[in-house]
Amino acid sequence: MNQNKNNNRRLVLASRPTGQPVASNFRLETADIPRPGENQLLLRTVYLSLDPYMRGRMNDAPSYSPPVKLNAVMCAGTVSRVETSRHPDFHPGDWVVNSGGWQDYAVADAKDVRKLTGDILDHPSRALGILGMPAFTGYMGLMDIGQPKSGETLVVAAASGAVGSVVGQVAKLKGCRVVGVAGGKEKCRYVTETLGFDACIDHRDANFARLLADACPHGIDIYFENVGGAVFDAVLPLLNTSARIPLCGMIAHYNSQGLDEGKDRLPLLESILLRKRIRLQGFIIGQDYGHRYQEFIDAMQPWVSTGKVRMREDRVEGLENAPQAFIGLLEGKNFGKLIVRVGDDNL
Amino acid sequence: MNQNKNNNRRLVLASRPTGQPVASNFRLETADIPRPGENQLLLRTVYLSLDPYMRGRMNDAPSYSPPVKLNAVMCAGTVSRVETSRHPDFHPGDWVVNSGGWQDYAVADAKDVRKLTGDILDHPSRALGILGMPAFTGYMGLMDIGQPKSGETLVVAAASGAVGSVVGQVAKLKGCRVVGVAGGKEKCRYVTETLGFDACIDHRDANFARLLADACPHGIDIYFENVGGAVFDAVLPLLNTSARIPLCGMIAHYNSQGLDEGKDRLPLLESILLRKRIRLQGFIIGQDYGHRYQEFIDAMQPWVSTGKVRMREDRVEGLENAPQAFIGLLEGKNFGKLIVRVGDDNL
Repeated sequence: MNQNKNNNRRLVLASRPTGQPVASNFRLETADIPRPGENQLLLRTVYLSLDPYMRGRMNDAPSYSPPVKLNAVMCAGTVSRVETSRHPDFHPGDWVVNSGGWQDYAVADAKDVRKLTGDILDHPSRALGILGMPAFTGYMGLMDIGQPKSGETLVVAAASGAVGSVVGQVAKLKGCRVVGVAGGKEKCRYVTETLGFDACIDHRDANFARLLADACPHGIDIYFENVGGAVFDAVLPLLNTSARIPLCGMIAHYNSQGLDEGKDRLPLLESILLRKRIRLQGFIIGQDYGHRYQEFIDAMQPWVSTGKVRMREDRVEGLENAPQAFIGLLEGKNFGKLIVRVGDDNL
Repeated sequence: MNQNKNNNRRLVLASRPTGQPVASNFRLETADIPRPGENQLLLRTVYLSLDPYMRGRMNDAPSYSPPVKLNAVMCAGTVSRVETSRHPDFHPGDWVVNSGGWQDYAVADAKDVRKLTGDILDHPSRALGILGMPAFTGYMGLMDIGQPKSGETLVVAAASGAVGSVVGQVAKLKGCRVVGVAGGKEKCRYVTETLGFDACIDHRDANFARLLADACPHGIDIYFENVGGAVFDAVLPLLNTSARIPLCGMIAHYNSQGLDEGKDRLPLLESILLRKRIRLQGFIIGQDYGHRYQEFIDAMQPWVSTGKVRMREDRVEGLENAPQAFIGLLEGKNFGKLIVRVGDDNL
């Protein structure tokens, strides 16, 4: 069953995952299409963004945002079209960005959505990628915490992904040597040939740590941390004095249960941060930088228009395929920004 | 044998410690008094500063400063008097701060020493404590990385010590709730009654973690990290969103050999830093903030003169007692800023 005008398909959290999510953690339901109240809009989902942070929301654990409740619709940023408006600033057919979740229809307060206007209407899904949350994350973490200076070396993992690709391209524009990390030869080739990184190392290579060191002959000044795990391990000994580590994700650990086996490296990390006078700082884009969105758009829009910063979209068709696509995302199976096309662009 | 005019007693690094230093790692030697060259000074050590960072210099490992070489004089900041000057700006009897090391006499380039003038001449040893490196460390780490705001809660360990006591007192002046951690009832009483902290928890108490939580009912906004170990463990779950952690030392780990036993908490730390958007930043006072010394003095001098910021000195008499005093420092046996009086104040 495709998106239709008669009812609302929605994917709810059926059970909480233990480790890697499985298909049975999600349940596809059919419900009535909701009705907007005063100053509200009925929105039809066209594009749905799948992002690693959603794994955290599936846990019943304290985090920076409340968890998704059992039997509630999975959260997600969406690009939608207005079906019904009960607010004077919006009209049927308008394109908006909203937090619609994994479903066909959502009701939102008009104040909580952003209308899309101008050039982006040629590519509305960019509002979930290169002109949306992932790029905003990469840009602000890089500029505010990473503070790139010409001639420095930056390393970023998931380099072909939504955040990593922006971090690397912007750092190149700022004059850095940029080394990406990605999974597989095809992604690595894309990162160097299309995105223009100076090098890209395959983290599946048995000699990964040595290859990374070879690609960073002058050490690492900025490590944009969005994965954790083995990449961080290989980066640690290469960090230069006064390095900066913006920390926006650690997908390698999202599925882990409790503490990892092995020796405790927390004191080792502290020791490295101390000796090398390193700044390690976590951030959450909306909460830390939500008020600086316009600054991001003013910088990014011209780069996007002139092709200086690009982002590959990995599109999946159909809401019903969102769970499998999301599971694949956590395994690195996507190639670029993962977007689910839920409904027709046209009315 | 005391300090004399005929030869130079000096303590050299006889062997590198494995874990906790022992007396046999040091050797007391007698040598000729060195002669100053052009633009140099012969300096007689009066006060010698013992500080935790010296433990790191005893290792033959890469650090932010080169290690002390075997059979070389142990490094230390000193307050000295000029015996012989071959530079026009200095005269016999002048008081200076220099890096004289654990010995009676040192030769220094005039450009590498700082002359003491004004009120501090009433208490020259303050140039090693409340108006010297430890206070400078506490002040800059607190102000630049900690960024205290009125109403926030700050926790600092080794609260009766040189760095911790300054951090807490300055944070109080900035309007924070200040909770110290110290070893033993006597130190804790001093921290609250004399230094004016709001609370001080004994880290030897079996209920330490619970007592710390009780003393921080609104969580922790700034944790000034100068010890590592069990204190950091108890602090981690109490950290608030957007907390800051200036990291200037980790005495609890200075004697450790390789990685600690137990589960790997590095991913846990990253996860906390991410979820709570925390800034953790190592710094080394001279290298990061050396150029801001005057700013520190301008702020601290009035507080010291008016008694708003105090530092207890723990004085040991005689160069020959420096090794045992230093070993005790690493075990928390000192009470206040540890200073060795090596020679007479008077000429």
